[in-house]
Amino acid sequence: MKWKRSERLVDMTHYLLDHPQQLIPLTLFADMYQSAKSSISEDLTIVKETFEEKGIGLLMTVPGAAGGVKYIPRMRDEAVREVIKDFMEELGHSDRLLPGGYLFMTDLLGNPELMNRVGKVFASAFAKQPIDAIMTVATKGIPIAHAIARHLNVPVVVVRRDSKVTEGSTVSINYVSGSSRRIQTMVLSKRSMKSGQRVLITDDFMKVGGTMNGMKNLLEEFNCQLAGVAVLVEAEHADEQLIENYLSLVKLHEVNEKDRTIALTEGNYFTKGGNE
Amino acid sequence: MKWKRSERLVDMTHYLLDHPQQLIPLTLFADMYQSAKSSISEDLTIVKETFEEKGIGLLMTVPGAAGGVKYIPRMRDEAVREVIKDFMEELGHSDRLLPGGYLFMTDLLGNPELMNRVGKVFASAFAKQPIDAIMTVATKGIPIAHAIARHLNVPVVVVRRDSKVTEGSTVSINYVSGSSRRIQTMVLSKRSMKSGQRVLITDDFMKVGGTMNGMKNLLEEFNCQLAGVAVLVEAEHADEQLIENYLSLVKLHEVNEKDRTIALTEGNYFTKGGNE
Repeated sequence: MKWKRSERLVDMTHYLLDHPQQLIPLTLFADMYQSAKSSISEDLTIVKETFEEKGIGLLMTVPGAAGGVKYIPRMRDEAVREVIKDFMEELGHSDRLLPGGYLFMTDLLGNPELMNRVGKVFASAFAKQPIDAIMTVATKGIPIAHAIARHLNVPVVVVRRDSKVTEGSTVSINYVSGSSRRIQTMVLSKRSMKSGQRVLITDDFMKVGGTMNGMKNLLEEFNCQLAGVAVLVEAEHADEQLIENYLSLVKLHEVNEKDRTIALTEGNYFTKGGNE
Repeated sequence: MKWKRSERLVDMTHYLLDHPQQLIPLTLFADMYQSAKSSISEDLTIVKETFEEKGIGLLMTVPGAAGGVKYIPRMRDEAVREVIKDFMEELGHSDRLLPGGYLFMTDLLGNPELMNRVGKVFASAFAKQPIDAIMTVATKGIPIAHAIARHLNVPVVVVRRDSKVTEGSTVSINYVSGSSRRIQTMVLSKRSMKSGQRVLITDDFMKVGGTMNGMKNLLEEFNCQLAGVAVLVEAEHADEQLIENYLSLVKLHEVNEKDRTIALTEGNYFTKGGNE
């Protein structure tokens, strides 16, 4: 069957979006659509221009025999600002206040459309660095980790609080939780990572950074390197910060249980130059 | 700016894939691209035919003033078979054998590309039913639940083993775990579901179905209805099955620790008419 350009464009767009960060040889498309490489190149120029025009992402072309095309997810700053604004609006509702000054955000972590957008925001910031895996702690970081991972096409590694038989042999570390200063345990399956990998760590909430710091120590046990830290919500506090280089979308300044108000501002995503 | 058809097709494909199961009014596209509705209709015909030809999904057109177009994810049977085959091949490696006859599959649950495909497989089976939420139990079901949810555009609800302050008020139930016959507890945040919702429950592994049955009981506490059960791997066993109507991708028949062999077959996805 001979494919028309219009049909090729639709299918190619789907294929590229479904295979982020993967080098796709032009011959794959040429074979798939029974078309000349020159036609495929012209198609890709249209896709590339539209992706850039609409802020969907970049198409990188690698020339030569081993070359091809690679889709790199990349959101524009104004789109990132919209994600942050939408998220802050949702998070700022006073009915999210829980006893002890906590905020209920489980529903937001369960919203696949929001998580997909958040994932693309962080993927945009880290897409140009070599990243081999995304690490998080069970349970609430998992949706964010998977959302980022899908856009960067790398595996997710989940650290647990307890060891389970289905994890096989594990490595366990003790660390000091930031605010409560209690000794806690983190467990990771030995098979989860290979030494030398570059790992992005992520979580839904960070105060002093004790959990993040625990994950950092765990990376050292595996001879892996920290590639970055992505936090959905960081909270202001008086203690010493344990983690220095991180990106956050939203900053929680104050929760007033009496007046039932929540003070939020944009996180450091732009000031730390996330989307350089 | 005036958009060319080729550019509209690329952008429209991205937009539709990013908004599954949502009715999109034609006027939205007409405004977005500064184009006549008749041109948009012609574009959509091309997208629709390509989506069907390549097995990406269906485009449903709803006529009338309140009408529009809806993308419904739908994989072809041969593509589903390929997902199952790839998954079985991965799962059948003897180095996955753990003491006690368990299988290590954490890495597969952390593979975003595989999870995306698995999610689309289950979404294809349930896309035509009204589903309001996907429920799973922490931790290992979460990636599957989110993968399905993204294709069906519904929220994910995570049941926990323990209550946490960040969950707010919770509903807790006791249930009998299938194989070990121990009393266990399940906890769900009260805000997670509204009464009357239709809920698809999912997990990575099912033997007798005790955990699934626990989730079913929890649904009753919330006056919600069971819309379906999706299991990645079901295991053969001699006890009475607690869950009757479920879809599984793979069936684990036997694990031989001495010979280090794993006997797997296709699950009941096709025989139970998943992709009707």
